[in-house]
Amino acid sequence: MNDNKIGTYQFVAEPFHVDFTGKLTMGVLGNHLLNCAGFHAADRGFGIAEINENHYTWVLSRLAIELEDMPRQYEEFSIQTWVENVYRLFTDRDFAILNKEGKPVGYARSVWAMISMETRKPADLLSLHGGNITDYVCDKECPIAKPGRIKVAQQTPIAEHATKYSDIDINGHVNSIKYIEHILDLFPIETFKEKSIKRFEMAYVAESYYGDTLSFYREEVGENEYDIEVKKNNQEVVVRSKVIFK
Amino acid sequence: MNDNKIGTYQFVAEPFHVDFTGKLTMGVLGNHLLNCAGFHAADRGFGIAEINENHYTWVLSRLAIELEDMPRQYEEFSIQTWVENVYRLFTDRDFAILNKEGKPVGYARSVWAMISMETRKPADLLSLHGGNITDYVCDKECPIAKPGRIKVAQQTPIAEHATKYSDIDINGHVNSIKYIEHILDLFPIETFKEKSIKRFEMAYVAESYYGDTLSFYREEVGENEYDIEVKKNNQEVVVRSKVIFK
Repeated sequence: MNDNKIGTYQFVAEPFHVDFTGKLTMGVLGNHLLNCAGFHAADRGFGIAEINENHYTWVLSRLAIELEDMPRQYEEFSIQTWVENVYRLFTDRDFAILNKEGKPVGYARSVWAMISMETRKPADLLSLHGGNITDYVCDKECPIAKPGRIKVAQQTPIAEHATKYSDIDINGHVNSIKYIEHILDLFPIETFKEKSIKRFEMAYVAESYYGDTLSFYREEVGENEYDIEVKKNNQEVVVRSKVIFK
Repeated sequence: MNDNKIGTYQFVAEPFHVDFTGKLTMGVLGNHLLNCAGFHAADRGFGIAEINENHYTWVLSRLAIELEDMPRQYEEFSIQTWVENVYRLFTDRDFAILNKEGKPVGYARSVWAMISMETRKPADLLSLHGGNITDYVCDKECPIAKPGRIKVAQQTPIAEHATKYSDIDINGHVNSIKYIEHILDLFPIETFKEKSIKRFEMAYVAESYYGDTLSFYREEVGENEYDIEVKKNNQEVVVRSKVIFK
């Protein structure tokens, strides 16, 4: 009964999409996940193109990815996605990352809101298309923890980045994937030689724009576990992130 | 007779692959071109996987892209590629970028060498697979100028970049696409509001590595025409580039 509720999409790990260890980068995986969310929603009548007509847009609020392994250069893999829950103001969308044999090597969870492009206020998802988004709620298991709370007390930034042309997306915001790259660039390459990322979380709190300077605050909150906060212009928090290595 | 000589590959301009104007970025287009080169070579028996067995690898030396238009977000487009010439030490590979109606909106030229992974010395392409690479030489027209000479006299860098984790590819080098991003990030966003890129050239001269600091020297050599040189650690030139806006 879940057949039409789960979307499955095929990929290959391209040469410029893998890091120095030959494994797919977290930024590229994040990009693929968000694309799959878009394909899946569009195929079911609640994609960006459809809802834009009514002046609404999807906004990603949280993303959590947990992995046993990453596809290697030239390897085929696939991503499954489905809707776990629909609430009035948020929807939970899950993902499975399958290796070329179809075995799950990771899962991801995401939380989305829909906002009016005019008022920026959230829309009521339960009334969207007469409530038919709830028809796609699927009980497939996503065996990883929900995104948790990320708290950073550190007051001294470890890096700064002046936003540039290539950071900015079609909405004029720093794009969700670029934050992932900048956050992982806080770690020296040796970290990625010795360890791999077990769990990665992003909380998208506010938008930043061309010309903003991003400051990165990082705190080691446990063995191999780091919480990161990104502020714009030393004031407002724009994103928070958690990186757990293994 | 050119049918099997030309490879055609389909793409869609993904949301995180377009810039703030909604058009595909030059870095992503470059990535697609290099992937097409890889697919085309692999399908004909002289791809990376095949030649790696004999301890050789392809090295990109020059890339020149000239465009009337760029695909917009969610638009389908395709890329054709073919081999124009094979010399002893270099091969010229051309590309056409076709819009969703199949009309060419741009062309590209590239120059490649094959080197031994052990000695780093160039291989003789004419003797590769008993010379059969020349069977694929195709007379399809590529109506843009060949890559030209780029010369930068400027001695004061306009930007520096300390190479980071996300810059580095599976070979341990700064990846060819990242240079394109860093070079276009030298221009303020206003440039891309008012103008678009007409022609873009890259000359890959030497490799840079994790920990290198890249310095960017830029010179306006004509109206809307810029030559750029990138040095590592203020010494050796690693890439040169030309950007012509319209």
